[in-house]
Amino acid sequence: MQHAQVSSDNASAHAAAASSLADACRSVRNHTEYLAIGLSAEDQCVQSMPDASPAKWHRAHTTWFFEQFVLTQNLQDYRPFDDAFGYLFNSYYDTVGPRHPRPMRGLLTRPSAAHVSAYRAHVDAALTRLLTPGVAPELAELVTLGLHHEQQHQELLVTDALHALSQNPLAWRGTGSVVLPGWSAPAPRPGPTHFLQRAGGLALIGHAGTGFAFDNESPRHQHILQPHALADRLVHNAEWLDFIADGGYARPELWMSDGWAACCAHGWEAPMHWRRDEVRGWLQVTFAGCAALALDAPVTHISWYEADAFARWSGARLPTEAELEAASADLPDYFGYAWQWTNSAYLPYPRFKPPSGAIGEYNGKFMINQMVLRGSSYATPPGHERVTYRNFFPPDKRWQVTGLRLAKDI
Amino acid sequence: MQHAQVSSDNASAHAAAASSLADACRSVRNHTEYLAIGLSAEDQCVQSMPDASPAKWHRAHTTWFFEQFVLTQNLQDYRPFDDAFGYLFNSYYDTVGPRHPRPMRGLLTRPSAAHVSAYRAHVDAALTRLLTPGVAPELAELVTLGLHHEQQHQELLVTDALHALSQNPLAWRGTGSVVLPGWSAPAPRPGPTHFLQRAGGLALIGHAGTGFAFDNESPRHQHILQPHALADRLVHNAEWLDFIADGGYARPELWMSDGWAACCAHGWEAPMHWRRDEVRGWLQVTFAGCAALALDAPVTHISWYEADAFARWSGARLPTEAELEAASADLPDYFGYAWQWTNSAYLPYPRFKPPSGAIGEYNGKFMINQMVLRGSSYATPPGHERVTYRNFFPPDKRWQVTGLRLAKDI
Amino acid sequence: MQHAQVSSDNASAHAAAASSLADACRSVRNHTEYLAIGLSAEDQCVQSMPDASPAKWHRAHTTWFFEQFVLTQNLQDYRPFDDAFGYLFNSYYDTVGPRHPRPMRGLLTRPSAAHVSAYRAHVDAALTRLLTPGVAPELAELVTLGLHHEQQHQELLVTDALHALSQNPLAWRGTGSVVLPGWSAPAPRPGPTHFLQRAGGLALIGHAGTGFAFDNESPRHQHILQPHALADRLVHNAEWLDFIADGGYARPELWMSDGWAACCAHGWEAPMHWRRDEVRGWLQVTFAGCAALALDAPVTHISWYEADAFARWSGARLPTEAELEAASADLPDYFGYAWQWTNSAYLPYPRFKPPSGAIGEYNGKFMINQMVLRGSSYATPPGHERVTYRNFFPPDKRWQVTGLRLAKDI
Amino acid sequence: MQHAQVSSDNASAHAAAASSLADACRSVRNHTEYLAIGLSAEDQCVQSMPDASPAKWHRAHTTWFFEQFVLTQNLQDYRPFDDAFGYLFNSYYDTVGPRHPRPMRGLLTRPSAAHVSAYRAHVDAALTRLLTPGVAPELAELVTLGLHHEQQHQELLVTDALHALSQNPLAWRGTGSVVLPGWSAPAPRPGPTHFLQRAGGLALIGHAGTGFAFDNESPRHQHILQPHALADRLVHNAEWLDFIADGGYARPELWMSDGWAACCAHGWEAPMHWRRDEVRGWLQVTFAGCAALALDAPVTHISWYEADAFARWSGARLPTEAELEAASADLPDYFGYAWQWTNSAYLPYPRFKPPSGAIGEYNGKFMINQMVLRGSSYATPPGHERVTYRNFFPPDKRWQVTGLRLAKDI
Repeated sequence: MQHAQVSSDNASAHAAAASSLADACRSVRNHTEYLAIGLSAEDQCVQSMPDASPAKWHRAHTTWFFEQFVLTQNLQDYRPFDDAFGYLFNSYYDTVGPRHPRPMRGLLTRPSAAHVSAYRAHVDAALTRLLTPGVAPELAELVTLGLHHEQQHQELLVTDALHALSQNPLAWRGTGSVVLPGWSAPAPRPGPTHFLQRAGGLALIGHAGTGFAFDNESPRHQHILQPHALADRLVHNAEWLDFIADGGYARPELWMSDGWAACCAHGWEAPMHWRRDEVRGWLQVTFAGCAALALDAPVTHISWYEADAFARWSGARLPTEAELEAASADLPDYFGYAWQWTNSAYLPYPRFKPPSGAIGEYNGKFMINQMVLRGSSYATPPGHERVTYRNFFPPDKRWQVTGLRLAKDI
Repeated sequence: MQHAQVSSDNASAHAAAASSLADACRSVRNHTEYLAIGLSAEDQCVQSMPDASPAKWHRAHTTWFFEQFVLTQNLQDYRPFDDAFGYLFNSYYDTVGPRHPRPMRGLLTRPSAAHVSAYRAHVDAALTRLLTPGVAPELAELVTLGLHHEQQHQELLVTDALHALSQNPLAWRGTGSVVLPGWSAPAPRPGPTHFLQRAGGLALIGHAGTGFAFDNESPRHQHILQPHALADRLVHNAEWLDFIADGGYARPELWMSDGWAACCAHGWEAPMHWRRDEVRGWLQVTFAGCAALALDAPVTHISWYEADAFARWSGARLPTEAELEAASADLPDYFGYAWQWTNSAYLPYPRFKPPSGAIGEYNGKFMINQMVLRGSSYATPPGHERVTYRNFFPPDKRWQVTGLRLAKDI
Repeated sequence: MQHAQVSSDNASAHAAAASSLADACRSVRNHTEYLAIGLSAEDQCVQSMPDASPAKWHRAHTTWFFEQFVLTQNLQDYRPFDDAFGYLFNSYYDTVGPRHPRPMRGLLTRPSAAHVSAYRAHVDAALTRLLTPGVAPELAELVTLGLHHEQQHQELLVTDALHALSQNPLAWRGTGSVVLPGWSAPAPRPGPTHFLQRAGGLALIGHAGTGFAFDNESPRHQHILQPHALADRLVHNAEWLDFIADGGYARPELWMSDGWAACCAHGWEAPMHWRRDEVRGWLQVTFAGCAALALDAPVTHISWYEADAFARWSGARLPTEAELEAASADLPDYFGYAWQWTNSAYLPYPRFKPPSGAIGEYNGKFMINQMVLRGSSYATPPGHERVTYRNFFPPDKRWQVTGLRLAKDI
Repeated sequence: MQHAQVSSDNASAHAAAASSLADACRSVRNHTEYLAIGLSAEDQCVQSMPDASPAKWHRAHTTWFFEQFVLTQNLQDYRPFDDAFGYLFNSYYDTVGPRHPRPMRGLLTRPSAAHVSAYRAHVDAALTRLLTPGVAPELAELVTLGLHHEQQHQELLVTDALHALSQNPLAWRGTGSVVLPGWSAPAPRPGPTHFLQRAGGLALIGHAGTGFAFDNESPRHQHILQPHALADRLVHNAEWLDFIADGGYARPELWMSDGWAACCAHGWEAPMHWRRDEVRGWLQVTFAGCAALALDAPVTHISWYEADAFARWSGARLPTEAELEAASADLPDYFGYAWQWTNSAYLPYPRFKPPSGAIGEYNGKFMINQMVLRGSSYATPPGHERVTYRNFFPPDKRWQVTGLRLAKDI
């Protein structure tokens, strides 16, 4: 189900299956560099909107994460690569100290992409020194968090780069917007949609066991499900064209009030990265450049508002995150195609407690104004997906690989 | 528990207990006019921010609601008072037609406040003609909705007016900001806070029975509660001063990320309508004008962000809406002091279906980006409160009479 | 040439010709009140944009000017009406003290319009006590400045009120936007345009003699004129319709770069206060309410950018202020129709020195980013016009009664 | 007086003195590339504010200018390098066609800096083919305009790059903000200021003769000068520190009204590119990186508003452009230090006519909202300065090398 192109040659040796933590570390860290191969120094420097970050910044920030939370405190005699980088590459950890303003990340033409490579090598070498057999469990846990953190930024790196390249008028020429040379989307799954009937009752939701999970997936807890039905596949581009043709972007009664305001303010008429060309028909800018819109591929790059309006237009609704988690084993396209918007607000699970210290800022302080997405996308790095995974974005964002699956009350 | 001053002389004849629908109608409609008695034509015209509306607009809009949804379709030969008013006084009903932009409501110096009084009289007379004994149940239901709708606007009318008057530098002189002459706050309930232990288990949440409720309070459904504890009273102003003194408005680690951004952007240093005067100490602008801050009164005019930060600072959390609803009978200050922010997003209850037609726009299209508040405030009109009532506002709003009650996991 | 309706009954006794300063004072001050007669308390309170001020504010500010600069220092035992008014009604005199922010003037629902009338009466009574025969020349000069200042605000009062009323959808009904009941525009002067040939040479520009003039009209100085031609009448609405029909608002090559940006940003398609109605044709909101556009009346409510684009489209140019001043005696419509945009920036005359003290802030600190207008308009109060008068506004403003006269190099 | 570092090795063969047009072309075009030598691909791509453009964009736009206005029409069989570049690199020529929005120039990570080099080589080769001996005078004139145009962009290239690098926190480390490696400022001219007395009378202003000049320097015309005095040197940094110490940035009475608003809105406390470091004292970011502020160097990077306030604080005024032009031969620092703000608005000279066609957009459409600067700066390319040269910027801009010279009425 995974597509070869987002994976590097080392992808099979991904984090979860790594024979050792050091191997996992090498594998994940190399994959980041692999993703940036097709991006020039200029491509890596640009910030196309405050939501996005430069590829170079992602490469440096994930490195700083290890330097700040792992090396400085655990590797004797570790010397930070550059004292200024803590200020430049801290993302949002108030507990750690002040930082460069997010909307100005694109102004950091210096350090260069090449200098960031040297920074990565410096930290990688130190991690190799640190991660000897018999590393303490608490430290291993911290390094593992750093790897999952880096994987999250891998997905952001490519979606942010796609957004930046899509702003260039050259994007609509064949290869003007290639992020990942040679990439191809996962094979579509044509055919009609069926609704799976799901009985109501109690479900156990949230992470259990000893494997890695983010704090926001815990604690595991009981949840009451109502009887419902779930589509066995994601909404496809062909269906989205029907929505457009039926005035989906012009009928306020289909939209939430805030959604309609966003639709009008941004002039939305189609998903992000779509354009109708008089000669060539509907086009989409993808990781592999501009291409004809694939009709039987899952729709991507839609906001929650659009997903919600589409569901209403379909006589359906968005699923809840618990419904998706409980049914995940039954849904063949749950992972690897597109993140699936839910009608669940991103809130703490009952009895949630964030960890103490700076790491406690990782997830908890974002539990407001966002909606949960479930599954994973074709931009999610291999091995990063998880049934209990809770992704989250504000309802007006559409630069991620976001789609939807319909649900119904029965 | 209710305070006399927001009630008019006719308050005892409030909607719920009215011997007839016509009486209820008269009572509620008169109460709106009573609330505007202390407001000059100028006070009634101003719009101090896009969130707020002029008092005159509230008086006209609630009237239009009856004209549009009740009279035009049910009273033969009804002649609309003015054809332009549908455009001017439609709030957000896309299904009904276009409307005057919300942020420009304050530009409507015409029709005058006096002309709006004539409009109200015209519609009141028609309602009297319509509401004869034996009115059809569907019509009675619609009129009842109109009355509850008007009561909601009664609370907005006085809080919007307070906001407008508070922007005037004269507000900090004794009577410069009087909204309701002679008003006084409900008597405070001094003494320490106790936490009531609440066992977990299944609870039935949502409206049941035949009395009036808004659509968003249904369907009644089972909900799992975790064991928890609830404070037996609201947080008081004295406690809020402790929060301020301990750097509550200067420590990002206490805040949600979006909350801290809002705090910095708006320069928040205290609840809305508070000011520290070098000579007079802490002052608050109230419905009765500027007064010394009442230390043992519940804190009001705080955003969800502030409530959340205060709870974190207290080593507690905000309650969920289900926790509050289940415990409401045990909480003596549940109603009549301040709306209580919860950590529940305003989302549809399981299996929620909005009514069809324009009335379906009443609540459903706002179920995103808002947090639920429970209870009621001293600005809530008599008879409007209800255990299952779900109030909702975005997390950065603080011009309503909003406070908080602490909760804890146990 | 003046129209009766902007003048009050006392207009014949205007400032310039008053038998005594006290009479002039009474006359000018009464005229302000006369202009507000048709405006309700609500009309007088609204501020429709930051450029404009409420009518009530104009009435109070002109009163404060006398209180601050005349009475407090010259009338023994004068007691200011209200200590807060200095803060509320200071316009821009930094030397005097802090002040209420300009964009928030519309929030001042209190003091009421009626209370402002009492303020005016209080100050008028004090002025009467002060202005006894034999008043010192320096004081008379200051009072005279106060009267001319008040006349400037008289013009702003009615144009600001017109702007506010024009924002109301009711404006396009007959009388919804009446500012001055019974007002009528000056009689148009139909017929073709002729260009008067003007020889070049030295001209004396600026104020001379003992009559009143603002500081910015001095010193009188020599200026070199080039040979040129001036239209003997203002551009009329019919000609403006030709400009529109010829794509005047859609052809960037006709516009200054900043002008075209403003045209696009604001969506300009016609002068302010114009609207094309499918049934009624072109309409204009005037001081007397909505009326059919008068084809042979001078165009009004245009920005400098529009005037400049029109002139370029006409194969002509805007005149300089010196050209207009030198030719004023030859131009029968120089006064009383519309202020005439020039291509002269509002800069100090050679050797200009502003007076010392707060009065020095009157004109000097605005000598940047503005263009000069000459003549006067039908909203200029009687007796206020002057050949050397320099009016000035930024080039994107169009809520004043602004028009244009064409010029050509020969 | 010129400093070696902004000049390339070929600088002595500059445009004005070139033995042939082809040589001049080679020299000027090479100089552009020389200026970008110290800028990485990332440095060349960033756009730090809408006023500025990326270095790569300047390199491409100046090339497009030759392609569009010279080669396409005059070199048979010329093949444009890339059809998309007309859209990407047109600056503001509406007559030529649509263009990429100015604020989005920094998003053009593609074409790369290297590809732009290839574009330049392609056009240079074509120019060499075109510029054979005996080229038609009209064509030579167009090429000469293209060279002067490119020189203007040379100055923008380095000042825009300086602005971009100065936004990086690393700028305040030694070499973090080096634009031009090895650059040094022109030697300062210490010593006291003397005021040169200048008699009034008629002066001839504007370009005459056969040498190159921009259209806005014509026609030459008579102008009346008043008696005045001009400082024999520019205001120095040490004097500016006195202004700061005397509250220059905190006293509204020193400022124009718009200037004070800008000062408050932007939080100005010193010229752009200055910072006070607790340990190191006053620092300035220069083309050679961060350095201690040179006290006896002319102040640079000030807005017109600041220049005007400083002049008022000094009991002086800004000169007019005519005063400077008439006295230029007497002023040893007229060229090569800093552009000198004048109190002259950028308006057409009497009887000015822009050329027809797209080239007419070069200057004429910017003759509003800007103030004239005279002289030249240390960033002006060699040979580009001219006594009649009229530079112009809006009064709030300070990213150019702008300073001031005092004037007085006598």
